[in-house]
Amino acid sequence: MKAKLASRVLSGDTIAAAKLISGIADEAPGAFEEMSHIYPHTGKAYIVGVTGSPGAGKSTLTSNLIGHFRKELMTIGVIAIDPTSAFTGGALLGDRIRMQQHGEDKDVFIRSLATRGLQGGLAKATIETIHIMDAMGKDIILVETVGSGQIEIDITRVADTTLFVMTPEAGDAIQMMKAGILEATDIFVINKADRGNADIIQTDLQTMLSMRHWLPDEWQPSIIFTEAIYDKGTAELALEISRHREHLTVTGEMQKRKKLRLRLELMETVEGLIKDSIAGIDHGKYLDKLIDELLKGKINPQAAAQQLVKRLASDLGRVNNNP
Amino acid sequence: MKAKLASRVLSGDTIAAAKLISGIADEAPGAFEEMSHIYPHTGKAYIVGVTGSPGAGKSTLTSNLIGHFRKELMTIGVIAIDPTSAFTGGALLGDRIRMQQHGEDKDVFIRSLATRGLQGGLAKATIETIHIMDAMGKDIILVETVGSGQIEIDITRVADTTLFVMTPEAGDAIQMMKAGILEATDIFVINKADRGNADIIQTDLQTMLSMRHWLPDEWQPSIIFTEAIYDKGTAELALEISRHREHLTVTGEMQKRKKLRLRLELMETVEGLIKDSIAGIDHGKYLDKLIDELLKGKINPQAAAQQLVKRLASDLGRVNNNP
Repeated sequence: MKAKLASRVLSGDTIAAAKLISGIADEAPGAFEEMSHIYPHTGKAYIVGVTGSPGAGKSTLTSNLIGHFRKELMTIGVIAIDPTSAFTGGALLGDRIRMQQHGEDKDVFIRSLATRGLQGGLAKATIETIHIMDAMGKDIILVETVGSGQIEIDITRVADTTLFVMTPEAGDAIQMMKAGILEATDIFVINKADRGNADIIQTDLQTMLSMRHWLPDEWQPSIIFTEAIYDKGTAELALEISRHREHLTVTGEMQKRKKLRLRLELMETVEGLIKDSIAGIDHGKYLDKLIDELLKGKINPQAAAQQLVKRLASDLGRVNNNP
Repeated sequence: MKAKLASRVLSGDTIAAAKLISGIADEAPGAFEEMSHIYPHTGKAYIVGVTGSPGAGKSTLTSNLIGHFRKELMTIGVIAIDPTSAFTGGALLGDRIRMQQHGEDKDVFIRSLATRGLQGGLAKATIETIHIMDAMGKDIILVETVGSGQIEIDITRVADTTLFVMTPEAGDAIQMMKAGILEATDIFVINKADRGNADIIQTDLQTMLSMRHWLPDEWQPSIIFTEAIYDKGTAELALEISRHREHLTVTGEMQKRKKLRLRLELMETVEGLIKDSIAGIDHGKYLDKLIDELLKGKINPQAAAQQLVKRLASDLGRVNNNP
């Protein structure tokens, strides 16, 4: 990778952006050097996370939001996260075909991130892809996942506004509580609201939300009804996203979320550096030896960890002193 | 915590074991010292992970397995993992009431681990609880989760045999593929097999399994039918677990899994030590200052991470040299 991708990304070149995103995911040499030219041009985009149960209509809803924001002349980035398995490969991407209606629009840039095969963590890869789209000049970045559980919660840690899309079918509400999604959601979207039980799930949600004590300045999650397949409710949802954005700005919460995101990115980068350093001690033999001693009961995990950190510090210190 | 819990745990004292498990989860002072007396007495228990969709009947199945293994005079530990949210607290534990029939049996020791509020990671807390039950002399340790997605996959990393429990209802199969469960499962359990679609889901599963190339010595996941509510299929399932255990022993895979578990535990312990060290630099002010500089664009995340690791190495090195 030559050190000129970044300048092409900054001029909005989608081919260069796609290359850099792949480079980051693969930890290609030079990719981090490129990123150092990207960072100074970030911090302007607004990030919307689209989470929810499989089959709830997240892709259709995302496509509707793209259409709406484009009418407002905003430029859009979309990151589609696929927790695909080795068995199914990228087959789930078929779902995303609906978004292809925007594929010809040069102001809509859509990339998929597969969770398998990522060298670093998912959160880190997502944040770096956000940086690249941000530096391209995208106004809004939609991060959509087909996953559930932990992945959803990770997404909420990188988004400014997090949507949770659900259908009126029973079971969703309980699933949600289990995964801790309730605390992590800014706007609940009840999609397929033409179905019978929309009011029941609304009542369930309101009951659960009322069980929590809300601080005066705190955002209380709102509930929006949509019928994504008919593009109904899209304008209301977009307005609610604006209302939440306004709230974050006025209360200073936006700055706090940015800081949390930076802390997460920093800690994940540190973790990556340290894992690499550990794997590199005596070309991995040191770690293997420690694990063998653990297996034989010659040392306990706490003592082994302390020994490893000590060795790590000594090795890193040596590198620091011999530049 | 006095340094005498460990010896009581070794004599099978459940109150001491419960205290030590809480101590570990809270990172109570002295808990790690106690653990150093526990480690030498571990490595004998067999660990079975029970994962699967919510409502599939995991608790009932676990209860049946306890009954079966008790008839074979084995002693049992059960770790129930609850990804409870701050909203619902421990309410989901109600599900576990079925297991209470074994509550009076002194050879069955059941503990819950909530994912919220754990200071360290879930995998680490689970492994340490396994160590404690192992040192108590439990022959079999069942690790059951009501979670989905990432938590399930973490469980498979600590278990010798992993079950995935599902019902014949549609949707399960697709969910599973998404979460990457297929690769992580040793035995699929189709519960509520009296329902209509059991053969359909069996065919779906077999098709998916046949899409993968299996090495000659590799365990190919098997499929067992149960009706947990009538205790049907329990003996077949227990036999299949034995068959898998035998396979792991004969092929040397058991040793490999033990090593992977130790590596996971070691790396999570190292991660905890390093996070504590980072948080401790200048009483946290150093990290705050770096994040402020990131926010102002004065430094980029990669450079900040390198600076942080350098400082960490220098601090740790100083500690090492001044014992």
